[in-house]
Amino acid sequence: MIDKKLEAAAGNGLLNRRHLLGLGLTGVGAAVANSALGADAGLKLEIPAWSKQPGPGASAYGSRSSYTENMQRAAGNPNPLYPGGGSSRSPLQDLQGTITPNSLHFERHHSGIPNIDPSQHKLVINGLVRQPLVFSYEDLLKYPMVSKIYFLECSGNSGALLGANPANGTAQSLHGLVSCAEWTGIPLSTLLDEAGVEPEATWVSAVGADAASMGRSVPLNKAMDDVLIALYQNGEPVRPEQGYPMRLFVPGWEGNISVKWLTQLKLTSEPSQFRDETSKYTDTLPDRTSLQFTYPMGTKSLITSPSGHMALNRQGVYQLTGIAWSGSGSIRRVEVSADGGRSWADALIESHQSDKALARFRIPWQWTGADAVLQSRATDSQGNVQPTRAAVLADRGNINFYHNHCIQSWAVNSAGEVRNVYA
Amino acid sequence: MIDKKLEAAAGNGLLNRRHLLGLGLTGVGAAVANSALGADAGLKLEIPAWSKQPGPGASAYGSRSSYTENMQRAAGNPNPLYPGGGSSRSPLQDLQGTITPNSLHFERHHSGIPNIDPSQHKLVINGLVRQPLVFSYEDLLKYPMVSKIYFLECSGNSGALLGANPANGTAQSLHGLVSCAEWTGIPLSTLLDEAGVEPEATWVSAVGADAASMGRSVPLNKAMDDVLIALYQNGEPVRPEQGYPMRLFVPGWEGNISVKWLTQLKLTSEPSQFRDETSKYTDTLPDRTSLQFTYPMGTKSLITSPSGHMALNRQGVYQLTGIAWSGSGSIRRVEVSADGGRSWADALIESHQSDKALARFRIPWQWTGADAVLQSRATDSQGNVQPTRAAVLADRGNINFYHNHCIQSWAVNSAGEVRNVYA
Repeated sequence: MIDKKLEAAAGNGLLNRRHLLGLGLTGVGAAVANSALGADAGLKLEIPAWSKQPGPGASAYGSRSSYTENMQRAAGNPNPLYPGGGSSRSPLQDLQGTITPNSLHFERHHSGIPNIDPSQHKLVINGLVRQPLVFSYEDLLKYPMVSKIYFLECSGNSGALLGANPANGTAQSLHGLVSCAEWTGIPLSTLLDEAGVEPEATWVSAVGADAASMGRSVPLNKAMDDVLIALYQNGEPVRPEQGYPMRLFVPGWEGNISVKWLTQLKLTSEPSQFRDETSKYTDTLPDRTSLQFTYPMGTKSLITSPSGHMALNRQGVYQLTGIAWSGSGSIRRVEVSADGGRSWADALIESHQSDKALARFRIPWQWTGADAVLQSRATDSQGNVQPTRAAVLADRGNINFYHNHCIQSWAVNSAGEVRNVYA
Repeated sequence: MIDKKLEAAAGNGLLNRRHLLGLGLTGVGAAVANSALGADAGLKLEIPAWSKQPGPGASAYGSRSSYTENMQRAAGNPNPLYPGGGSSRSPLQDLQGTITPNSLHFERHHSGIPNIDPSQHKLVINGLVRQPLVFSYEDLLKYPMVSKIYFLECSGNSGALLGANPANGTAQSLHGLVSCAEWTGIPLSTLLDEAGVEPEATWVSAVGADAASMGRSVPLNKAMDDVLIALYQNGEPVRPEQGYPMRLFVPGWEGNISVKWLTQLKLTSEPSQFRDETSKYTDTLPDRTSLQFTYPMGTKSLITSPSGHMALNRQGVYQLTGIAWSGSGSIRRVEVSADGGRSWADALIESHQSDKALARFRIPWQWTGADAVLQSRATDSQGNVQPTRAAVLADRGNINFYHNHCIQSWAVNSAGEVRNVYA
């Protein structure tokens, strides 16, 4: 039974956003008790051991609590013949807010992480330029930089949802190839202007210093717009796994094009047709032709709590929360459904809502013990609406698994178990 | 000589903000060379060792490059009779952007860091409430949270600038007790509403679970406004040194009041007159009376590069950069002077400019080898302007060293050495 004192916002228990856990509810498993307190509200709790003696003092470099060390990236290399290949996924179900701590930012490597000595690293700009240039790391640190909060998402993220049967996965295993950080770097346009782009140049080919020589072609108009040579991530130098000492950062576009360990930018009149924009990172359609250069990541969202493998252990009000993002702008709206998409209510966005960054949403929901299917649907500042899985399949089939931004459905059964389903 | 092709913005070399390192300048120590490139712009650089073999793959928890491990907090405990007391300072001169990575966020402890088991930790709300409440950590995780980017600053930060003689310090040693993070937590008003604040309550006394039992009194109107029970910091659970499993977070106010390891909130009709709001953290005036409860941090800025102990190794254009913040709003304007405050030019703000958060500014400056005194001056959204050191001294004297937000002066001599001066 839905409690009659609660104001519904949509079907199957979605509530007005003002409703809080326990507020005005009886029998909902109140989060509080006063048994430990005396009648005069004096504190009668036992003083814990850690309050009885001084702890260790300040340190040069901090670390997290041992009680949180179970929050880890899920790292794997699926192919032993492919050394250093593979990825790690952010523990989305454990995180809050929108910034991903650097140690938990997802990774994707094609030949592992080169251990680059920044004093020996060079960035070359050549090809169709009036003056080829070479920069040391020290040179680049002298340039003007900008700082922006941007998400980064692998184009293969969420691809498992296009499989024939729903994978028994978590937010992390299904969607953990997305993260968000404050990236500080030099606008690429600054360096291209200095080299002097020739009129016939229309592409910038970016190459990394890893053993895979990861290469991607960037259209010149994007390169001159908001692309950065990123040198800092959340305030500190970019981590080795994110491209130390420098990476390309192409806001809103598939992660692979933000070439890490960047060492060359060559201006060309055609794309370079690198391996990772031909045999990989192209979208094969049902007729076996492939779309190439499908760069922007779609308008997308995901409920991170509750999510797959979690269990609801009481009936009552829950605060559903999740993340939303778009490669084409900022998040304007997130709707949530508890009945598999039959009715929707607007969630609150409880974070900054900046361009091409994660946003954090929440909405209260009363679980009465009945079956439910929880979904979220994002709309961005361009009016793009996150599609259903059926719409993605109808549009592009499922030979390709890149760029899937369909609605995630989490089923809750009467035992409170949460699992990935197709709905 | 100032290059005649450059457009001046203020005296002694401050330039129009469009000017870049090397752009259109001759003899400025150009950052680039083409000697390593062939006439056809083909790359002739030697392939480095790290590009010739795969590196290690993805991992469960990342770490920074060994080449950046010299970026550390400066940690100290000045008094061996005061175990766990002391602080560590963020390496402001090494950081970029506005977010401080959690491992480099400043610390200030009064009895060290308690090693709290979150399953055994309690938060009590009592005193002048209709219903005393006790919350476990698990209880609190169920509440609605908001995510905000806020600076945190110790009220003792920059106090050394009130000394009679200029300390031979760095940005870190003089000003490193400020940092910035995305804090996610429960609005305190939510929990106070649930407890039911009695009409005679006007203060909230917050107490920590450290051995110092750090206590501070928070006016109820602030507590009901934007104060959080912070549970997450930059996406992950709050670090032990920042109050794990939970801290009070009082946006814009002196750091000490954001009580860490929070275990009690008692509603009272008067402030509790805790040790750290009587014998400490009060502002003693020249007549030996003391101001109490001077909470908001002032409108403030600081050039972080160049800054104390750095050396300019060439004449030419530099991109001055720094941080600005205000406890009363967002940063609206930062001006920079290169002639000790005789003339000022507007810097660019190259980051988000949100309420009570760090902002990042920059401006180009041509150093001709002459003496210079570099200053920055912030203005916030309330119209508050950062004062000179002389104005602060005239206003409050220098018996007290808290809440100093005066303009920092960095002198550059003809050898290019940068040092803290009074100007």
